[in-house]
Amino acid sequence: MTEPQKDPLVLFMPSGRRGRFAKGTPVLDAARQLGVYIESVCGGRGICGRCQIEAQEGHFAKHGISSAADHLSGVTEAENRYSEKRVLAEGRRLSCQALVEGDLVVDVPQDVQINRQIVRKRAETRVIERDPATQLCYVEVEEPDMEKPLGDADRLLHALVKEWGFEKPRIAARLLPQIQKLLRAGEWKVTCAVYTDGRAEAGGPLVTAIFPGFHNVGCGLAVDIGSTTIAAHLTSLLSGRTMASAGAPNPQIRFGEDLMSRVSYVMMNPEGRVQMTKAVRDAIGVLIAELVQGAGITTDDVLEAVFVGNPIMHHLFLGIDPTELGGAPFALAVSDALSFEAREIGLPINDGAHVYMLPCIAGHVGADAAAVTLAEGPHRADEMTLVVDVGTNAEIVLGNKDRLVAASSPTGPAFEGAEISGGQRAAPGAIERVRIDRETLEPKIKVIGGDEWSNEEGFEKVAQDVGVTGICGSGIIEVVGEMYLAGIIDEDGVIDGSLAAKSERIQPTGRTFSYLLWRGDEAAKSQEIKILQTDIRAIQLAKAALYAGVRLLMDKLGLEQVEAIKLAGAFGSYIDPTYAMVIGLIPDCPIDKVKGVGNAAGTGARMALLNRSYRREIEEVVRRIEKIETAMEPRFQEHFVAAMAFPNKVEVFPNLAGTVTLPPRKVLGGGEDGRPRRRGGRRR
Amino acid sequence: MTEPQKDPLVLFMPSGRRGRFAKGTPVLDAARQLGVYIESVCGGRGICGRCQIEAQEGHFAKHGISSAADHLSGVTEAENRYSEKRVLAEGRRLSCQALVEGDLVVDVPQDVQINRQIVRKRAETRVIERDPATQLCYVEVEEPDMEKPLGDADRLLHALVKEWGFEKPRIAARLLPQIQKLLRAGEWKVTCAVYTDGRAEAGGPLVTAIFPGFHNVGCGLAVDIGSTTIAAHLTSLLSGRTMASAGAPNPQIRFGEDLMSRVSYVMMNPEGRVQMTKAVRDAIGVLIAELVQGAGITTDDVLEAVFVGNPIMHHLFLGIDPTELGGAPFALAVSDALSFEAREIGLPINDGAHVYMLPCIAGHVGADAAAVTLAEGPHRADEMTLVVDVGTNAEIVLGNKDRLVAASSPTGPAFEGAEISGGQRAAPGAIERVRIDRETLEPKIKVIGGDEWSNEEGFEKVAQDVGVTGICGSGIIEVVGEMYLAGIIDEDGVIDGSLAAKSERIQPTGRTFSYLLWRGDEAAKSQEIKILQTDIRAIQLAKAALYAGVRLLMDKLGLEQVEAIKLAGAFGSYIDPTYAMVIGLIPDCPIDKVKGVGNAAGTGARMALLNRSYRREIEEVVRRIEKIETAMEPRFQEHFVAAMAFPNKVEVFPNLAGTVTLPPRKVLGGGEDGRPRRRGGRRR
Repeated sequence: MTEPQKDPLVLFMPSGRRGRFAKGTPVLDAARQLGVYIESVCGGRGICGRCQIEAQEGHFAKHGISSAADHLSGVTEAENRYSEKRVLAEGRRLSCQALVEGDLVVDVPQDVQINRQIVRKRAETRVIERDPATQLCYVEVEEPDMEKPLGDADRLLHALVKEWGFEKPRIAARLLPQIQKLLRAGEWKVTCAVYTDGRAEAGGPLVTAIFPGFHNVGCGLAVDIGSTTIAAHLTSLLSGRTMASAGAPNPQIRFGEDLMSRVSYVMMNPEGRVQMTKAVRDAIGVLIAELVQGAGITTDDVLEAVFVGNPIMHHLFLGIDPTELGGAPFALAVSDALSFEAREIGLPINDGAHVYMLPCIAGHVGADAAAVTLAEGPHRADEMTLVVDVGTNAEIVLGNKDRLVAASSPTGPAFEGAEISGGQRAAPGAIERVRIDRETLEPKIKVIGGDEWSNEEGFEKVAQDVGVTGICGSGIIEVVGEMYLAGIIDEDGVIDGSLAAKSERIQPTGRTFSYLLWRGDEAAKSQEIKILQTDIRAIQLAKAALYAGVRLLMDKLGLEQVEAIKLAGAFGSYIDPTYAMVIGLIPDCPIDKVKGVGNAAGTGARMALLNRSYRREIEEVVRRIEKIETAMEPRFQEHFVAAMAFPNKVEVFPNLAGTVTLPPRKVLGGGEDGRPRRRGGRRR
Repeated sequence: MTEPQKDPLVLFMPSGRRGRFAKGTPVLDAARQLGVYIESVCGGRGICGRCQIEAQEGHFAKHGISSAADHLSGVTEAENRYSEKRVLAEGRRLSCQALVEGDLVVDVPQDVQINRQIVRKRAETRVIERDPATQLCYVEVEEPDMEKPLGDADRLLHALVKEWGFEKPRIAARLLPQIQKLLRAGEWKVTCAVYTDGRAEAGGPLVTAIFPGFHNVGCGLAVDIGSTTIAAHLTSLLSGRTMASAGAPNPQIRFGEDLMSRVSYVMMNPEGRVQMTKAVRDAIGVLIAELVQGAGITTDDVLEAVFVGNPIMHHLFLGIDPTELGGAPFALAVSDALSFEAREIGLPINDGAHVYMLPCIAGHVGADAAAVTLAEGPHRADEMTLVVDVGTNAEIVLGNKDRLVAASSPTGPAFEGAEISGGQRAAPGAIERVRIDRETLEPKIKVIGGDEWSNEEGFEKVAQDVGVTGICGSGIIEVVGEMYLAGIIDEDGVIDGSLAAKSERIQPTGRTFSYLLWRGDEAAKSQEIKILQTDIRAIQLAKAALYAGVRLLMDKLGLEQVEAIKLAGAFGSYIDPTYAMVIGLIPDCPIDKVKGVGNAAGTGARMALLNRSYRREIEEVVRRIEKIETAMEPRFQEHFVAAMAFPNKVEVFPNLAGTVTLPPRKVLGGGEDGRPRRRGGRRR
């Protein structure tokens, strides 16, 4: 007796899930049985093209599988029809058509392309595993029958049960007046958007939109509402691809530059809340129109949206008066994640679309911080990870998979170039890099829009083209860091006036001194740019606030050291980690473990958009994050005062000291030598 | 050693549930543990007064319990405070305050009264066991705490979990902008309306409204949208009491008297559907205002609504174009029950209120028939029960707990007095009762508004006061029945002109004869009222249509006889069952088993309003009702033709024959004698 032949073994990549399937099993069915996510809109009819796979060729010794394209059944007529009309790259098969005929290693590509459209390049290219809440499902509905007088909507729901396996789907009441026309327009073939929240308490699958016939486009919106800038991404729910991105200034700026002035505006003006809610919603509406046009779709194709923002942006967007957030106890109206229909807030996307808002962590630590946490995953890490979203209000999360703490620090707008004499936003012409010669105290600079240092050939052209217009956040960090390293300022931030004798860059300015960073140049249409003593003070206040917040969280966890630092936000991405550490903005850490992570809030929003399990993940994480209200902590003041010094009055920076040559201790007006261990230091 | 003493035994009436409870257990807790429904809004604080019970006195041998009021703990301070302000009748206790101290038989009264308000009398006094979808829950919410920065909404939900045991409650997004003001206005004490659909697929408990402080009023609306009349009842969700009832003509009448003319109006007028939807919603809005004022509450106190109506009324109310219902295959847009927020259709009640629409049975058998079925419960009966809602379109359900069938028959408006020469709606002055002397053929009548027969003393005054203005539906049934019993018409409905010789009441009218029912009387401001041959024909057509529908359903179930008949609707309540049978409107049945059941559709709506399990019951029943489309059935025509005769050409009426003296068979123009058995009869 010969051993009975085993069924073919199929392994899916990149998930690595494997199983044996009878010959003749469609690859799509095999994937579903293993829980491998492959998109399909048409329900296995070979028309949507979403379920593409590729059979790998060769012997995979590790898996014991000899895979070949001809271990799949031959190309079907449906596939030929599809590839005539659309893109079906060499080697690709539709998994609903291709049947298992032998052992296979199946690659599930992440970049299924079905239209020959151009997709805009984006900086953020992270591939997010998909399991969106909204799914497009093509169904063929039974025609009405007098013998079985079920309603049209009821027969549609039956088809969703029969063809797609939904359990007790429901239909939004809003769709009922349209359903008969839609079914007849599609000749009893329609594509439904089915929303399944995933939490039992939110109910089962709900039909939120119906398109007559076969409809192969479904998108989602991921929006980060910053107090300064609103950034929005339009992403295909079917492929995960970002189809368009756009940004716009937050028009609420006209009611107040910073968050607290906007809260004040609401408190002082009876219509203030309404005006600000309208302003931000209108601006988002304009962005949506732009995105939709850019992607060549309609607003009806936008079936979901995820929003993040700090608590005040979050509340104003929802139409909630933020007054309570303006003073202790900083009570949020709602902290948990929210799901609701887009039309509740008049969002100009599909009427049935659902909005998801990530949870807020605390009164000053918002859904944006939750999104950053989701994207950077300190809760998934072994390393003690510090995640900082630097803004006018820095949001800080610290911890690892065992424990997480969070706080915010009121850093103010200094890092964005405000409150700095020569400061400006990051834009062409802004000084972003600075080096100061330790001997001559002469600076060299780089500006945004040019690659050359100011002492290199070619800078003159850059200076003429874009000008030297001011200094942006990352430039400020560097110039202050360099001034400290070059001995121009002492550890308390005082500009050493005695150096005026050595360099004409050091100049008396009123009762203090300043450092002339840029002389000005008529040809370059630029005026002189000085770093004043008040500028140094502004940076000290800002960085001390941030550091003190971080230090409180470290205290909470009993840490003397963090193991990794992630700097989120545009500012965080551009600053040089070394200088951030030199000025004592962040605690000491191995330099190669400090990373700018870009628009992590936007990434977190996209993750929540494309995969429901990320929503559950961040909701669970936020519930267990321990929140520290810095204003309540008695040691905040002490940490703040120590952090006013460069890099810090009491903390040690061994990793930093191994990277750069820190200047000998110098406190103008008489100081000690040697770096005291923390808590051993002097109080001011 | 003595036997350990057992815990006290507590028996609740009328449910009969019993259990042992430790001394000191609040009676309310004992009830909940046994699943006995006792209302409570305040959560056991002794302030809402909804949880009243009464301890029975005496020895209940059947249960082996000696119960006494002093087996409850003494009256508490909270109860004294309550009874000072509100009604707490002699012997009543608040079950949240009274503790079990010994064996008890506890009566849970159905008429808990908490205000000294006058409740209007209603005809329908059925007590409906309550388990409403919306519950009022008073909670005391923790104040905000910087250390645990949960949002106000989140703390509210925690309180609902902690104090009321809800699982994962959610809050309507719409309430978020108000929640902080409401909590502060109530000083952290609020009463929530919590809606729990009860079906897993609809999700968990949802806070739909919040009232600051303690709020002890919560009502629901039960509305029957008839094509002629809209009837609405305002019912307390807390006591089950109907607080106010009101009715109004359906203003859609101006677009078309009957259903099909309204469908035609929609088909002919582009704005027709919108106009009719607006008309009915506006009329309901006016009724709501009237009810709310009558009950002394506000629209915000109306937290739920249930609507029933025939399919066309159902669709127009929902804003659905009824055109598909105007022709085969009579496709409903939706047949299953619906739940949605009232604001979807702009209903002027609480913004968070939920609407429930009972399911439609078929394209011509609507949610009103479902409500009648729920109220009359053929599906709960052993007897083969026929339920007929007589209207311009009669809706018929037949069966028992094992099997149910349903159909509709286009009876037309004859039974409402339309299409009859002297016909009118049931109103003062309309003839509603008729008797004809078998010998003299002289009639006597009664009119609505008077108790005397026309040959009795006092009638003259009635006739002068209200007039004799026409003949209403029940009067028409009686006069035709009496004309048949008196031999004035033959079994085919032909008026016997030869009788003109015997009585001057029989008069030639054109080529046929008529019967003079009322001579007219100048003093009584009345004209003469005749029954024309065409009137008899109109009644024959109407009753034949109804009977043929019934007969088809009997065929379907293989029945020769039904065991009980319930006649719903105003008409059904006023007609005399004997005459309905004499004219062959309904099949033969023991006369005492034929009952008018009043506004059963309204009762069914109230049942669905007050108890979620009735919603599940009728949804399940409607799914298994077998639907018959009369127009599709080949035997309809045959049954219809046989049913044109009085009482029927082929059917036997043994029960009827035992009740009244049926005339000898007489077919003018040559007939047979003796009643043929069914299917043995002649065809016309």
